Amino acid sequence: MKDRKESLDQLCINTIRMLAVDMIEKARSGHPGLPLGAAETAYVLWSRVLRHNPANPLWPDRDRFILSAGHGSALLYALLHLFGYPLPMEELKQFRQWGSKAPGHPEYGLTPGAEVTSGPLGQGFAMGVGMAVAERFLARKVNRPGFPVVDHCIYALVSDGDLMEGVASEAASLAGTLGLGKLIYLFDDNHITIDGDTSLTFREDAGRRFEAYGWHVQRLGDDAGLDRIEEALRLARQEQTRPSLIMVRTHIGYGSPKQDSPKCHGEPLGAEALRATKEKLGWPQDPPFLVPAEAAAHCRQYRDQGAALEKQWSEMLERYRQAFPAEAEALGRDLLGELPAGWDRSLPVFRPEEGPLATRGASGKVINALAGVLTNLTGGSADLAGSVQTLIKGHDDRNIHFGIREHAMAAMVNGMVLHGGLIPYCGTFLVFADYMRPAIRLAAVMNIRSLFIFSHDSIGVGEDGPTHQPVEQLASLRCIPNLRVMRPADANETVAAWRVALSKPGPTALILTRQKVPILDPAEVAAGGGLARGAYVLADCAGLPQILLLATGSEVHLVLAARKALQEQGVAARVVSMPCWELFSEQTPAYRESVLPSGCRLRLALEAGAAMGWHQWVGDRGEVMSVDRFGVSAPGEVVMEKFGFSVERVLEKARALLGGA
Amino acid sequence: MKDRKESLDQLCINTIRMLAVDMIEKARSGHPGLPLGAAETAYVLWSRVLRHNPANPLWPDRDRFILSAGHGSALLYALLHLFGYPLPMEELKQFRQWGSKAPGHPEYGLTPGAEVTSGPLGQGFAMGVGMAVAERFLARKVNRPGFPVVDHCIYALVSDGDLMEGVASEAASLAGTLGLGKLIYLFDDNHITIDGDTSLTFREDAGRRFEAYGWHVQRLGDDAGLDRIEEALRLARQEQTRPSLIMVRTHIGYGSPKQDSPKCHGEPLGAEALRATKEKLGWPQDPPFLVPAEAAAHCRQYRDQGAALEKQWSEMLERYRQAFPAEAEALGRDLLGELPAGWDRSLPVFRPEEGPLATRGASGKVINALAGVLTNLTGGSADLAGSVQTLIKGHDDRNIHFGIREHAMAAMVNGMVLHGGLIPYCGTFLVFADYMRPAIRLAAVMNIRSLFIFSHDSIGVGEDGPTHQPVEQLASLRCIPNLRVMRPADANETVAAWRVALSKPGPTALILTRQKVPILDPAEVAAGGGLARGAYVLADCAGLPQILLLATGSEVHLVLAARKALQEQGVAARVVSMPCWELFSEQTPAYRESVLPSGCRLRLALEAGAAMGWHQWVGDRGEVMSVDRFGVSAPGEVVMEKFGFSVERVLEKARALLGGA
Repeated sequence: MKDRKESLDQLCINTIRMLAVDMIEKARSGHPGLPLGAAETAYVLWSRVLRHNPANPLWPDRDRFILSAGHGSALLYALLHLFGYPLPMEELKQFRQWGSKAPGHPEYGLTPGAEVTSGPLGQGFAMGVGMAVAERFLARKVNRPGFPVVDHCIYALVSDGDLMEGVASEAASLAGTLGLGKLIYLFDDNHITIDGDTSLTFREDAGRRFEAYGWHVQRLGDDAGLDRIEEALRLARQEQTRPSLIMVRTHIGYGSPKQDSPKCHGEPLGAEALRATKEKLGWPQDPPFLVPAEAAAHCRQYRDQGAALEKQWSEMLERYRQAFPAEAEALGRDLLGELPAGWDRSLPVFRPEEGPLATRGASGKVINALAGVLTNLTGGSADLAGSVQTLIKGHDDRNIHFGIREHAMAAMVNGMVLHGGLIPYCGTFLVFADYMRPAIRLAAVMNIRSLFIFSHDSIGVGEDGPTHQPVEQLASLRCIPNLRVMRPADANETVAAWRVALSKPGPTALILTRQKVPILDPAEVAAGGGLARGAYVLADCAGLPQILLLATGSEVHLVLAARKALQEQGVAARVVSMPCWELFSEQTPAYRESVLPSGCRLRLALEAGAAMGWHQWVGDRGEVMSVDRFGVSAPGEVVMEKFGFSVERVLEKARALLGGA
Repeated sequence: MKDRKESLDQLCINTIRMLAVDMIEKARSGHPGLPLGAAETAYVLWSRVLRHNPANPLWPDRDRFILSAGHGSALLYALLHLFGYPLPMEELKQFRQWGSKAPGHPEYGLTPGAEVTSGPLGQGFAMGVGMAVAERFLARKVNRPGFPVVDHCIYALVSDGDLMEGVASEAASLAGTLGLGKLIYLFDDNHITIDGDTSLTFREDAGRRFEAYGWHVQRLGDDAGLDRIEEALRLARQEQTRPSLIMVRTHIGYGSPKQDSPKCHGEPLGAEALRATKEKLGWPQDPPFLVPAEAAAHCRQYRDQGAALEKQWSEMLERYRQAFPAEAEALGRDLLGELPAGWDRSLPVFRPEEGPLATRGASGKVINALAGVLTNLTGGSADLAGSVQTLIKGHDDRNIHFGIREHAMAAMVNGMVLHGGLIPYCGTFLVFADYMRPAIRLAAVMNIRSLFIFSHDSIGVGEDGPTHQPVEQLASLRCIPNLRVMRPADANETVAAWRVALSKPGPTALILTRQKVPILDPAEVAAGGGLARGAYVLADCAGLPQILLLATGSEVHLVLAARKALQEQGVAARVVSMPCWELFSEQTPAYRESVLPSGCRLRLALEAGAAMGWHQWVGDRGEVMSVDRFGVSAPGEVVMEKFGFSVERVLEKARALLGGA
């Protein structure tokens, strides 16, 4: 009986291996080394430990599995197919082709069962830590004695590349500090990177490093075997207070003539080596994409097991619903990512008579106003909670202290969003968006509702100098597809920005001032509501304007003052607040024309950041007042003045434009 | 005698402390906590161990000192002033003001003795590792028995923030692997971050972590005292094969009422606490900026010591020059950052008949052609040496394997440039420029000659899909002030790009194709030489063009084909290759007009990247064919075609433009 099981297991493992290399061979592109080496590890996890339901990849209480080493995507697709996820063989045969659900690296939203988009190394590792934070948050929030409705583990297969990336180090240190016991990572320790043996670049004692982080580390020697891997996984599940790293010594390209060589990392084996591999592993040369009937039949049981698991859980949830109807309703809504009806009634309205307020301050007030109604709102900063105003007051359980780890912070927020059930956010200074960029990009690629809050948004930062004064960050964030970049001009625009960020799909970067700015008077100008259309007429003149003054954020107040002076001199000037280019670009041509009439060619844009991109709005006859050099250490108002951000200089420029008309 | 020395030492330490807090108080801005806590550590290093010559901050064989925790800048300025660097008291009194040489964070090139610009945490740590690599490279290259002309250590004061940042983890792991024995870091272990006690976020056993990396770790308990710190530094110097971490338990805000509290981290003490601090440390309340005569006299000896050290070295160098004249000449030139006469004669010229060549391949050939004449050319990649073609063949000692650590790689290259004597470069895929962005920015802020090579530059990457296909990276790099972004169209433009990158000051990003592109025929088109002016007429028509076709990189070949088809149809079209916008913007208006005549308003730009920024070149009547969404996993030529990058689509667009004229 045991023998039969063993041989069946080996048959399934080889099925996975051969599906993967056949996919890669047919595509003439891909990474066979990892699937051949890690198939055994992954199979043990999937067949003996993972609690999932292949028929429903979105079952909320499933264990998560992340292939952080995303280049091994063929392994994931082979697993998904064999275990009965809705990924048919035709997709595997279209691996890496236009329109396939089996793309080059796993893509969230494209492949059923791909929990995250992975490939850029370290990201999957850090997103998993975010998922574990989310699981714990939700469990503490909703579970009741006898009702562990949220109770699952986060697994990942990670590579030496993942362990080398800084983002993973950051996340690992924080995971240890937080004691995330449900995080279980399998390290595919194959001693090989693209450039050669890991001794070239990676001589550290990784196990000892993770112990120093506070992880539970198990080291499995060569040829550990399925049972030993299973045992390690069970021990890891038993460990409640420390994340687990299981180091599995594997062999890249196992069974192929290129085994233990970088040559099998990133290109197809080639016909000859493929033949030799199949021979070595006792696999028929033909047909390719073979799934032996026994393997298929054996794996069918996991589908039944999975369905039973979900059914048990659903029955518990039903009892929970009867015992705790309000909690159950909230959980259901939160898991769907929906907001409770009337959630935005708690949003504050700011009055000019309250005096100037930094938009970071307004954002902090929004967070605290929403915290009561959005009980799954949670977030934090990279050791700048007070400066960026990210704290939820009186709710320490909902404040996450990420430490000085911007990159992991952003990746973890992505993981929290992907996990579901939470509304996570994170914040730091705008200049440090650079540290987070790979994770921000991934949020945009996945088009998920990650919320990144950036304060200290210009040279107005002042004394801290060029390293802390963002210049190019606004423009460079605007380059990222799918990302909404919003730079509100005052407290009410900040409220409107939060409203958009929470109610629309996709990621948002919220760009906020350090310095105080006046609150625009809703009686004189349209209130923050215009923000939802990206740009709007904030202050107008009668008839067609002679000149348009465009600005975002703190510079809106300068152009408002300039407009007033121009009006007094009989110049018809319009002020357009443009807090979000992306939203404006989505509006109808008629609306855009109504804001920026083509008949008015004299246009002056003002923004304390790089000019890049503004020409599309001001056109050939327009001018941009921008910052196209690095900043200087001096008080913020001095730097602003010296860099030309004053009403006088705006008026000079405007008059020069009008004079040349 | 010992007592007198001790009290003198304490007097100097308190002078440093009080200068720092007085600076901060006067500026009403700054970070007093670190200077108060770390003054003792820094003073021991500077007075007893550091080999430097305050009168000549650029002495090539000086020990380097990096204040990685750059927010403690007031500590550095106090040290520099007291030890006799050319940083007069007036500068200290202008701390953080416009035009001061004592800016908010240390700035390379602005403050004599500031070895690096620091502040963004982790960067100083990683740059120091680069400096240690440079020191070892140079020492191995130039030292001869009895002539240790390059023989110095790299010290840094690092904070818990530095240790948390991923870039430092990457650099630390590599420093351990490389066994950089001359790297000695002092960890200012004060248990406090801005948000509170480090136990909130940083419970790891940092010492054990560094031991796992292969570092030599010493843990100094509370109140270790000057002699114990000195002893630890001496042990660290004795350790030849491992980098050293000395953990010094300190107290943030030492002596102030806010000691051991985050409240003294980032804002002035305030009058009352300042008074209490001076009282507690037995310091006169007035005047501020006091340097007691005894302290000044005591520190003067370090100037004499420093001058003597350099003199000894200069005498040795003179003997070296006599014994090894060629080596000495080369060393002198390399240390000045100059290139040997005729260095560029070795650059290859490519002929169309050689057939298509990826520009990454051309770059690899350039590196190997230059390696013989530029014997200090050294570099490597983040585990993609073959793909990015960064290997110097036959010179393993000059190839750096950075591992899968893009961020540390870039920061280390910055450190190598700052160290001097080398021409370092590094490379990875363009999409991973995102991982390196904070370090690229710092290279640009410092305006140093760092060379970043990025291959796989567009959706043309193909099968690896959206995570590996850059879209917004070109535009987002172009936003960075001071950075030259060059995307050559063929092998000869690639040669020209290397020529510019090596012969001009400031950093360069070289953007290269994965896929093969034809070599432009110098007989038909101007050869790569036009690149030095940023943009140039590559193929022209008689008279004023009806339409301008603008492109960079691989897309140049598409517009060349389109031009040919248009010419055959009697349309006068000009092709402009625009490999470097920054260089083009520096040209005279007359030159720019000659390339992009204002009389020709119909302009079509083609680039397989985000449109951001192109409007400034094509103007209101122009069009941009770009990629403003994420890519897709499929063969590169399929993705290109589906995304509209084909001669047919260019012709369609051009005809539509011409039709609307």
